[in-house]
Amino acid sequence: MRILFIGDIVGSPGRKIWKEYMPRLVSKYKPDVTIVNAENSSGGKGLTKKVYHELLEAGADILTMGNHMWDKKEIFDFIDDAEHVIRPANFPEGTPGKGMVIKKVRGKKLAVINLQGRTFMNAIDCPFRKADDLLSEVRQEADITFIDFHAEATSEKLALAWYLDGRATAVVGTHTHVPTADNRVLPNGLAYITDVGMTGPYDGILGVEREAVIQRFLTNLPTRFEVTKGREQLNGVVIDTDSNTGKATSIKRIHISDDAPFFD
Amino acid sequence: MRILFIGDIVGSPGRKIWKEYMPRLVSKYKPDVTIVNAENSSGGKGLTKKVYHELLEAGADILTMGNHMWDKKEIFDFIDDAEHVIRPANFPEGTPGKGMVIKKVRGKKLAVINLQGRTFMNAIDCPFRKADDLLSEVRQEADITFIDFHAEATSEKLALAWYLDGRATAVVGTHTHVPTADNRVLPNGLAYITDVGMTGPYDGILGVEREAVIQRFLTNLPTRFEVTKGREQLNGVVIDTDSNTGKATSIKRIHISDDAPFFD
Amino acid sequence: MRILFIGDIVGSPGRKIWKEYMPRLVSKYKPDVTIVNAENSSGGKGLTKKVYHELLEAGADILTMGNHMWDKKEIFDFIDDAEHVIRPANFPEGTPGKGMVIKKVRGKKLAVINLQGRTFMNAIDCPFRKADDLLSEVRQEADITFIDFHAEATSEKLALAWYLDGRATAVVGTHTHVPTADNRVLPNGLAYITDVGMTGPYDGILGVEREAVIQRFLTNLPTRFEVTKGREQLNGVVIDTDSNTGKATSIKRIHISDDAPFFD
Amino acid sequence: MRILFIGDIVGSPGRKIWKEYMPRLVSKYKPDVTIVNAENSSGGKGLTKKVYHELLEAGADILTMGNHMWDKKEIFDFIDDAEHVIRPANFPEGTPGKGMVIKKVRGKKLAVINLQGRTFMNAIDCPFRKADDLLSEVRQEADITFIDFHAEATSEKLALAWYLDGRATAVVGTHTHVPTADNRVLPNGLAYITDVGMTGPYDGILGVEREAVIQRFLTNLPTRFEVTKGREQLNGVVIDTDSNTGKATSIKRIHISDDAPFFD
Ligand SMILES: [Fe+2]
Ligand SMILES: [Fe+2]
Ligand SMILES: [Fe+2]
Ligand SMILES: [Fe+2]
Ligand SMILES: [Fe+2]
Ligand SMILES: [Fe+2]
Ligand SMILES: [Fe+2]
Ligand SMILES: [Fe+2]
Repeated sequence: MRILFIGDIVGSPGRKIWKEYMPRLVSKYKPDVTIVNAENSSGGKGLTKKVYHELLEAGADILTMGNHMWDKKEIFDFIDDAEHVIRPANFPEGTPGKGMVIKKVRGKKLAVINLQGRTFMNAIDCPFRKADDLLSEVRQEADITFIDFHAEATSEKLALAWYLDGRATAVVGTHTHVPTADNRVLPNGLAYITDVGMTGPYDGILGVEREAVIQRFLTNLPTRFEVTKGREQLNGVVIDTDSNTGKATSIKRIHISDDAPFFD
Repeated sequence: MRILFIGDIVGSPGRKIWKEYMPRLVSKYKPDVTIVNAENSSGGKGLTKKVYHELLEAGADILTMGNHMWDKKEIFDFIDDAEHVIRPANFPEGTPGKGMVIKKVRGKKLAVINLQGRTFMNAIDCPFRKADDLLSEVRQEADITFIDFHAEATSEKLALAWYLDGRATAVVGTHTHVPTADNRVLPNGLAYITDVGMTGPYDGILGVEREAVIQRFLTNLPTRFEVTKGREQLNGVVIDTDSNTGKATSIKRIHISDDAPFFD
Repeated sequence: MRILFIGDIVGSPGRKIWKEYMPRLVSKYKPDVTIVNAENSSGGKGLTKKVYHELLEAGADILTMGNHMWDKKEIFDFIDDAEHVIRPANFPEGTPGKGMVIKKVRGKKLAVINLQGRTFMNAIDCPFRKADDLLSEVRQEADITFIDFHAEATSEKLALAWYLDGRATAVVGTHTHVPTADNRVLPNGLAYITDVGMTGPYDGILGVEREAVIQRFLTNLPTRFEVTKGREQLNGVVIDTDSNTGKATSIKRIHISDDAPFFD
Repeated sequence: MRILFIGDIVGSPGRKIWKEYMPRLVSKYKPDVTIVNAENSSGGKGLTKKVYHELLEAGADILTMGNHMWDKKEIFDFIDDAEHVIRPANFPEGTPGKGMVIKKVRGKKLAVINLQGRTFMNAIDCPFRKADDLLSEVRQEADITFIDFHAEATSEKLALAWYLDGRATAVVGTHTHVPTADNRVLPNGLAYITDVGMTGPYDGILGVEREAVIQRFLTNLPTRFEVTKGREQLNGVVIDTDSNTGKATSIKRIHISDDAPFFD
């Protein structure tokens, strides 16, 4: 099973470049399933129902989320009926939505899990133990298990990956919006990357208008963070897995920008 | 002027792999100057006098540091006489050591500056304003200005880079120990990468023995963090600059590990 | 010189109880000057021009602020003309407003300074060094120096107080909204209390509607924090100082609530 | 049932003043049970077996702890056999020790629970849900339930107290080492105080030698924190409860220092 994962889509520039390249990515990589992190896909923060459907129609099979989960209030109205979007599974009991989804992919079963870190982030339930619980739960059923670990600290991301090596198929990091160059398959078959990076403006700061971010650092005064305009970038990974062993065989980075044009 | 920069050297495994490959790096890339982040070079934390000299003898011209600066107490005894090591310049007034050094390189002058971030880190002086001050100070004198920005948050690193684009030659990030894949030259000639990554164990967590880090996340109990053994990796960048304009023309990543062997 | 200081006034309940008791406080304590922390005085967050004037008319001589300084955007329009309000002095250079004001009180000069802490708060300039600078600046001119240190951590507040003992007349803490019972005059004549506490709702959580705060801790979901209704409390201190020596002679707590009625 | 609670005992000065006054406290207040926070009782950090026995012999019935729990390594050797000491109950599953103890007191049953906060502290399990679980567990058995909530943020402490009002008898805060003046019985019979304060040096910063703490704030350089010498203080509370209803009827502060001598 080949998995295409697209890092945090930021606002309309993110949706635009992804939709533009999606057919070419499909034609080049022929993924069996496409997973997209959508926590910033609506106006840079959160997910509206409209964008939820837009992303599914453009080819996403599953959407994952993160700390910006609730930034668009309407999410509370549709999350419980939205089959194809998951939120971090280690949000506390009683949180709307679900943290794992199982999908049939070419006769095999793929479990997609979303988790969120706690270092430099909100205190929620333990992502390590929640991963244990969910992986136990689907051990019999799922052939492949894919985890989007939405976290800040490199140590926490690496720790979860090594902790799960041999028990899950892939752990890909999101949230920092900067792609890392450490994609590799760990010794027991877990595909890993610390951060996939974002999909959206190429010349912003994490997708946001630069001047506002710089002024925030200089002055600590309140500034409005708007998704910036201009050139775009796309960041993703393609993971090859063996559905019989549940192990990954490779993880490759995809980066598209003016500095790195896409070749079919 | 061509600059070779080596990311956080972690303990004896880091020194070993760097010293092993340094002659081949020199022969392949022919750098005019080599800068090495040494904050973890002695036993994984701090810098001893012995290692200071060892790194200089092995080919480092300038050492930069970071938050682990003071972890080996003997640094207080030799820092003020150690010409070739700098500490974050925005540590408060009165801190031992210096934050900038100017070095003659092939008839040109290179200013090397070390700064440290404040997001998710200790409250020190503003790195943005300190950069302003130091760049003003050396504007006349220095042909090339290189900054090692030791920081955690991707937003703070990107913000400093864009803030200085057109005024400094290079801003390279360190501290997270994971190399990022976003190396690029910004529109006004500043070479940038969010993090260069570390040089040391390849199969640890940021260089540390994995089990201890995983247990810390699982239990919050005190655990000793030791530099791990086994295979090594090296991460660095090579930056090409134009000494007449003070601008960078390219920044390339170097990664050496079992998964990416070095070719001369 | 006798100083009356009123802790963080929260919303209309805070203004109501303070205005109700102010005449009786004046009649009982006969303060020479009244200083009021106003960072939460408008709707629980920030300060509007209307409330600025309302507080001055009700008897405040000087208003101090804190991290909620900019929550009402109109503050930017009037802060530079508002003579009687100060903001934390260690906000970075270029911040609107001023951090110190000097006021004539019965033929003597009182310097009122506002500072903000950095532990568990935003990274701004060093409050210790800013205190040094401002105290040097007014050493000749001011007979009495009063500091509202708006900070979270007990260690930082105690450290500043002991650091300034013998150089300033009073350091009173604000921000945590809970009055501490450690008011005392330090050996060299500095009046100190870790936190004066808030003035506003008695049955809220820091002035806010309880259910919203509890839900935030339980779920991490976004909740709106509104100033709660019902019974009120007032917290303040009265500080006696000797204008000839610049030293404090006593600091007493004032607490008014249903559990501790006011006696004239 | 009358409960005497003594706030964080810091080092030998803390043990000294408490042991000195304990007989007089007993004679004046006639408590039915004495609970002591011991997280700093051995050298300012942690608890040794020797001090554990010393505190029990001096009259403590139950010891509670906090974030400094593991600072003396020998705790791991005796915690599982130490019947009379509890650690925060919301430390993750598998942590040595226990978080609740039930004690017979004059024919009634007292449940003592220790919890730790998460705001500005380590990410552990949810203290609100852990409180729910433990209170459900002992609902039938315990007549009185007492909680030491070791936490930093005033909001988290107040939130837990209001959340449990009507379900527990007392929530007393520890950790900040500064006594608050907000002791009260909430409407449904829960005795509350945000922080009891510490027992140990009177002229230190949270019990620590002042100069080291001030230098840490000024320089961020590593400094050794030692328990300071000189005068001492004692902070505690006395809580009266009705064992038939499980409700508190009063909570009074005790503070002993040179500025507030003890009267029998
Ligand atoms: Fe994101
Ligand atoms: Fe995020
Ligand atoms: Fe490092
Ligand atoms: Fe570092
Ligand atoms: Fe406030
Ligand atoms: Fe505040
Ligand atoms: Fe503590
Ligand atoms: Fe403590």
